[in-house]
Amino acid sequence: MVISMNLWLHFSSGYIYLAPSLTFLPVALFELQMAPLRYISLVYSRPKAAYELQWHRGPVYLTEISLDVDADRDGQVERNNPNKGSWMWGPNGHGAILLVNCDSEHTCRKSLDSEHQQQLCLYLKDMSPMVLRTSGPAKLPEGYKLTMHISQGDAECVRVFRTSFVKDYPLVVGGEDLSKEVPCLWGNAEMNFYVEGLRFPDKDFEGLISINLSMLEPSSQGFPETPIFTDRVVFRVAPWIMTPNTLDPVEVFVCSTTDNDQFLKRMRRLVENSGCKLKICPEDMNRGDRWMQDEIEFGYIDSPHQRFPVVLDSPRDGDLQDFPYDVLLGQDFGYVTRTAYGKEVSSLDSFGNLEVSPPVTVNGKNYPLGRIIIGVAFPTATEGRNMTKVVQDFLWAQKVQEPIALFSDWLLVGHVDEFMTFVPAPDKKGFRLLLASPDASYKLFRGLQNGGHGQAKMFDGLGAEEITVDEILSDEKLKAENNYVQSCIDWNRDVLKRELGLDDDDIIDLPILFRVMENRAVAYYPDMVNMIVLGKNLGIPKPFGPKVDGRCALEAEMTSLMGGLGLSCTYIDDFASYHKLLGEVHCGSNVRREPFSFKWWNLEM
Amino acid sequence: MVISMNLWLHFSSGYIYLAPSLTFLPVALFELQMAPLRYISLVYSRPKAAYELQWHRGPVYLTEISLDVDADRDGQVERNNPNKGSWMWGPNGHGAILLVNCDSEHTCRKSLDSEHQQQLCLYLKDMSPMVLRTSGPAKLPEGYKLTMHISQGDAECVRVFRTSFVKDYPLVVGGEDLSKEVPCLWGNAEMNFYVEGLRFPDKDFEGLISINLSMLEPSSQGFPETPIFTDRVVFRVAPWIMTPNTLDPVEVFVCSTTDNDQFLKRMRRLVENSGCKLKICPEDMNRGDRWMQDEIEFGYIDSPHQRFPVVLDSPRDGDLQDFPYDVLLGQDFGYVTRTAYGKEVSSLDSFGNLEVSPPVTVNGKNYPLGRIIIGVAFPTATEGRNMTKVVQDFLWAQKVQEPIALFSDWLLVGHVDEFMTFVPAPDKKGFRLLLASPDASYKLFRGLQNGGHGQAKMFDGLGAEEITVDEILSDEKLKAENNYVQSCIDWNRDVLKRELGLDDDDIIDLPILFRVMENRAVAYYPDMVNMIVLGKNLGIPKPFGPKVDGRCALEAEMTSLMGGLGLSCTYIDDFASYHKLLGEVHCGSNVRREPFSFKWWNLEM
Repeated sequence: MVISMNLWLHFSSGYIYLAPSLTFLPVALFELQMAPLRYISLVYSRPKAAYELQWHRGPVYLTEISLDVDADRDGQVERNNPNKGSWMWGPNGHGAILLVNCDSEHTCRKSLDSEHQQQLCLYLKDMSPMVLRTSGPAKLPEGYKLTMHISQGDAECVRVFRTSFVKDYPLVVGGEDLSKEVPCLWGNAEMNFYVEGLRFPDKDFEGLISINLSMLEPSSQGFPETPIFTDRVVFRVAPWIMTPNTLDPVEVFVCSTTDNDQFLKRMRRLVENSGCKLKICPEDMNRGDRWMQDEIEFGYIDSPHQRFPVVLDSPRDGDLQDFPYDVLLGQDFGYVTRTAYGKEVSSLDSFGNLEVSPPVTVNGKNYPLGRIIIGVAFPTATEGRNMTKVVQDFLWAQKVQEPIALFSDWLLVGHVDEFMTFVPAPDKKGFRLLLASPDASYKLFRGLQNGGHGQAKMFDGLGAEEITVDEILSDEKLKAENNYVQSCIDWNRDVLKRELGLDDDDIIDLPILFRVMENRAVAYYPDMVNMIVLGKNLGIPKPFGPKVDGRCALEAEMTSLMGGLGLSCTYIDDFASYHKLLGEVHCGSNVRREPFSFKWWNLEM
Repeated sequence: MVISMNLWLHFSSGYIYLAPSLTFLPVALFELQMAPLRYISLVYSRPKAAYELQWHRGPVYLTEISLDVDADRDGQVERNNPNKGSWMWGPNGHGAILLVNCDSEHTCRKSLDSEHQQQLCLYLKDMSPMVLRTSGPAKLPEGYKLTMHISQGDAECVRVFRTSFVKDYPLVVGGEDLSKEVPCLWGNAEMNFYVEGLRFPDKDFEGLISINLSMLEPSSQGFPETPIFTDRVVFRVAPWIMTPNTLDPVEVFVCSTTDNDQFLKRMRRLVENSGCKLKICPEDMNRGDRWMQDEIEFGYIDSPHQRFPVVLDSPRDGDLQDFPYDVLLGQDFGYVTRTAYGKEVSSLDSFGNLEVSPPVTVNGKNYPLGRIIIGVAFPTATEGRNMTKVVQDFLWAQKVQEPIALFSDWLLVGHVDEFMTFVPAPDKKGFRLLLASPDASYKLFRGLQNGGHGQAKMFDGLGAEEITVDEILSDEKLKAENNYVQSCIDWNRDVLKRELGLDDDDIIDLPILFRVMENRAVAYYPDMVNMIVLGKNLGIPKPFGPKVDGRCALEAEMTSLMGGLGLSCTYIDDFASYHKLLGEVHCGSNVRREPFSFKWWNLEM
């Protein structure tokens, strides 16, 4: 009894449970005589533990029961964190984190077995650890039990497995199983659980999941089973995060086709010079679909215990459609996709139309992971093409890179990467926004004409394509088309300035002309803004501009603009194999990058 | 041209627009020659205005175009707030606020007319003001137009009306109309708009609405109409807010029935003593349904420009169902309801099962508007009654009073107000949580027995109901039933402590016994916790407890407990007219209270 007295005096938060057969009572426990069947929480000074004091046909036992998670996000499952039952953003926030187990170790089995021990280890590593800590008597009183339970809504988003001596990792809750008894290992014991996320946040799922552990008292005398107490932990499913051009490249992906040998050769040199790997998707996999940018978007998911890349597979589903699932999905390489309703996809669903800005601060609000950028129809348009709703819903639901919708439907192909990109910079905000600019192009061409180079030829060596500076400047139709294009880009420029908090000197206008076909625009000469950014090396579509003293005036201007930022330009001839097919270097490549060092859970929302 | 030069030098953010016919150019405008058809934003020092400089077949004009709202939440529409295009919570936040126009002035007409001038004024007052400010030349260049536009998703949530000399308040956008040209009043002009919210936040609607104003350039030479610039404002729809017992009462609502004259008489005295009004719903309206608490919940909506009460009508739909719409809905008294899918309502959908706590702070997180409390089935229950999903979704979506789900399905009627309430207190957290407590009741009864009052009678004067203290204490079945009830309440006590950040001394246990019928509990004697709280006056069900020296021991205990908080108890006999029908004073009444002085938009989320 002395123990119980001490505990009584020394403990503060947690559970004291007295079983019904309490017959002998010291004075200090007299109050409890009035409540022979209850638990009571007391003031105590030892942090991070819930204690239970119980009396059952014998001496008073002290029992600790705590369902524990990594609520302080340090990679360790601490004891009974007082904040484990809620979730808060920010560096002073709290709450455990769950990964969607979307890499190839993921299986649909109801339990895991140790047949392939190495794969099992990898699988367990993707899951969040959860520990049931108990200490006290060797067993609970007759009929009492511990039950783990989740809500119907959470059941399709999470599965919990546990360690077991009898069977490897049986499923506890998830799917059809909302509630299951958990065997009690008393004395001083720990039972390890593994919690697996099944769904990314989306329009109908905010991303929060609760797991409850209740002690139930046996039903007696016709009463229902009653709860003695419930411990609860909350997880948030980690969002899918995109990586901007300012992050270091790891791998570059391109397609091999029957006609792009020279392109691949130049790309290989650029990629190797940039210190990363070139991965070539062979013809039998790409089936002639060269638009590596459009089929996939690389991102990653992150938690204090594990991090891995995740590819978002576009509903575009061109001939490259099997590549992300069959080739990219692998050990510690996840896969997620969204299927459009009724197959209503358009060219705007290609992921050349899905980009992300570097980190920005807008009117005092920080976006340390940048902002996603997509292209849609102009809002007053009565008809127009849009990115499909399921993908837009998915992107908005990730929350940590709040999207910006630009107007890209004015382009025939309709992708934001046709008129904008970001490059790293050593000053100001750490980057520049590059925009295609017909105005800058006309200014450059007029300068050439005024300098006596009106007869210099564009498309030199490309045969029938050749055209002089004078001819370009006298083409009134081309001028009208580019006035139209400039007005479309200017509207987007304004949105980008407002939504990314940019000043004019954060933006560089690149000399690029367009043509308008079927009321929509395509690049007239190779679209230099549609580049690949690998650290300080830029792979730029070779523009075939007018030559002055043997040097392409467009390349000279581009090299000068980028040189001011310490960036090195490599011009890659993509004329026949990409430009003529309405794409360029960026459309035909994709880059997997290093993740942010900033942790998404430290965002202040 | 001097004006343009000055403007050039002095202005910074906004739009400079030069029409195509620019032929004469001073040196300072030379750069613009390269961009004859564009807008340019410049650095300027005058805050809060977007300026447009335009040249069109004549001198250079300065034009200001700004769509303005009350983004700083001071009740005034300021000029071009730089934050008007986004929404942020908190005292340092920003973003305009919209009310759901759910009071009786609301009509479905496509425009408003001035036939009933007074009602029209009230109607306009419920809407958020929005102003289009223009200054510059008398008209736009030929073919240019201003268009207001909203997204498809927002169209069912908002309507915008404008002032007009020709017709009163024509609809601009909303419903079927996503986009409409706005007439230009140039020179120095202001056009007033009125923005009306149509939907409360809900599971599929976060509450944010964008309204855009674009200047469009005429289509020419076969190009589509193109946007010159777009101004955007963002509103958040005000949430529905509940009022806890700690707020001052304004009106008390009760039903008149054939058998409750005496009850009404006592209530009238209590209400008048408390300085508020008693409103009696007559028999022809209530049709014998006396459960005023259960059919409705009073709340309010608030904005910097307007505030009014809004009644939430329960899907319970008893015989009182017409009362909220037919009687309460009125000028500056709003109405909202949710219809359950397939009529699947249970007793847990009555609003005796919907309460709200006073303001609390939990682990450092502030809830200055308190937290909503509802009752549901115990989470491990394989079957059980719950509050219907549509109402739960609505409550969670309001966000500002994050709900807590308690376990109330153990009660036959199943309402949280059967075992808990809050009363104001002069100390600690400003309130106490009162909980029904069989333990406290047994302790009191044992004390009476030990003091020689074992033969004192409960239900004195109620004839067949009478029973002695000794008889109650020797009823083993009653004891077992109350052990079960206590375990259910204790589980809820723990949840309330954790979710409201309460200590044991924030809670007072009231001596109340239950019986278990059909496996679920009902109050054995009038359930004192089911009280009405009117400032410092409590209207408490008269418990008919054992009399000691002529005084009811239960009333004495209750009066003593409440007296310690400076609260005055009035015991109201509801035995025949409410208690026997499984309800009490709280179930049979409802209180409309003053709103919080705290403004919901100042919450930090």
